Amino acid sequence: VIVYINGTFCTEDTAHVAVTDRGLTLGDGVFDTLLAVDGVPRDARAHFERLHRHAAVIGLTADTALFAALADRLLQENGFTAGRHAVRTTLTRGPGSRGLALPDPAAPTIIMRAAPVPPAPGPARVVIARTVRRNEGSPLSQIKALGYGDNIAAWREARDAGADDALLLNNAGNLACATASNVFVKIGDAWLTPPLADGAMDGVTRAHVLRDGFAREATVTAKDVERADELLLTNSINGRRAAFILNAGGR
Amino acid sequence: VIVYINGTFCTEDTAHVAVTDRGLTLGDGVFDTLLAVDGVPRDARAHFERLHRHAAVIGLTADTALFAALADRLLQENGFTAGRHAVRTTLTRGPGSRGLALPDPAAPTIIMRAAPVPPAPGPARVVIARTVRRNEGSPLSQIKALGYGDNIAAWREARDAGADDALLLNNAGNLACATASNVFVKIGDAWLTPPLADGAMDGVTRAHVLRDGFAREATVTAKDVERADELLLTNSINGRRAAFILNAGGR
Repeated sequence: VIVYINGTFCTEDTAHVAVTDRGLTLGDGVFDTLLAVDGVPRDARAHFERLHRHAAVIGLTADTALFAALADRLLQENGFTAGRHAVRTTLTRGPGSRGLALPDPAAPTIIMRAAPVPPAPGPARVVIARTVRRNEGSPLSQIKALGYGDNIAAWREARDAGADDALLLNNAGNLACATASNVFVKIGDAWLTPPLADGAMDGVTRAHVLRDGFAREATVTAKDVERADELLLTNSINGRRAAFILNAGGR
Repeated sequence: VIVYINGTFCTEDTAHVAVTDRGLTLGDGVFDTLLAVDGVPRDARAHFERLHRHAAVIGLTADTALFAALADRLLQENGFTAGRHAVRTTLTRGPGSRGLALPDPAAPTIIMRAAPVPPAPGPARVVIARTVRRNEGSPLSQIKALGYGDNIAAWREARDAGADDALLLNNAGNLACATASNVFVKIGDAWLTPPLADGAMDGVTRAHVLRDGFAREATVTAKDVERADELLLTNSINGRRAAFILNAGGR
């Protein structure tokens, strides 16, 4: 597998980052994952404009046009011209000395990897996570930041319960997201999805679904989730995926 | 500078981690920072027992005795036999393929670095962070997990306000911690520090101070913070550091 790192394409086993990289030491960075079909990135512009926007939240910049060109080239270099592939772009603040003080000037690290992904899976069996909440009070919950510890904790809880995924509530007890997806719930005739301020990540597919007029933003309580008629998980790799809850009282 | 990584001591510029390391891609790991004085780690046992305990929260294990021996050797290899040095130990879940699913078996990454640190600084001018809250609903807020994004956001806010550090409130509006320290507040005759459940990290110095009987755990509201007679920040590098608030109404 060929990866891109800081200006060069190289084989994955020779692609390394410094042990001082703040992406590694502090989770100080953002990333994007997009789907390529038959060698063509879907919504590349929306993805890399979002990456630029999310990078700005933590004080970094991302070159939208450069990243789009790199994604194309990465797929070519790997011969990924047929089928489904995920392209992940990671942008960190780069090497730093100890402590939180920002390196000045920063020399950000850019990594891009591609990997085959299976066809979109069938419906997801999900649990409502009981051991971890999403941080609605952090601007990082609205962006694709590197620190996925809470989501991984929820994922482990789902796995231990024999489920495919977990839904995360925020500290106010309202729905935020799943471990790697946005969530839409159908209540009566309305499809609703949590606003970013409730701790929802600003997903590209989520934005599409909202723009389509299919759904609207509204705070979704835990009770709403349990009584929802239908649930939908969205992300760029699996699109729209039906879900049903294993651990709700009445279901 | 000599660093330890996965079984070997090498120069820092040759010490790398794979781009697939989950510490980098997902902030999936824990760490510890201890102070060494004249080449001798302080409280090494307490630090590495805590690292073991924190690793267990995310399903990893840390070998307390091995890590203590490595810290001694790292200081020797660097000739750090006089003065103050910080030793940082990082433990990640190691390389993984894309997505959150845990690598099985995992091949964790262990990194240990040492660096000189200046004498403990004078009193800290702090602000109460307005742009980010601490996630009291996550078990990761109680451990030294890699995802420091929220703390970095608070640190940037402090810097922009001309302060040295920021205090983080949780989503309930109660005090949790500073960006890299625990916080103690004096209210009347009592010294109080937030319980871990309020989003406080389980600090080694914090534990010492509590065990000494100097302070007790209690939820500290934002109002309490503003009316506190004294504030103290604690961590392993700077010990106990006085602090005063720049942006409280009455101060």
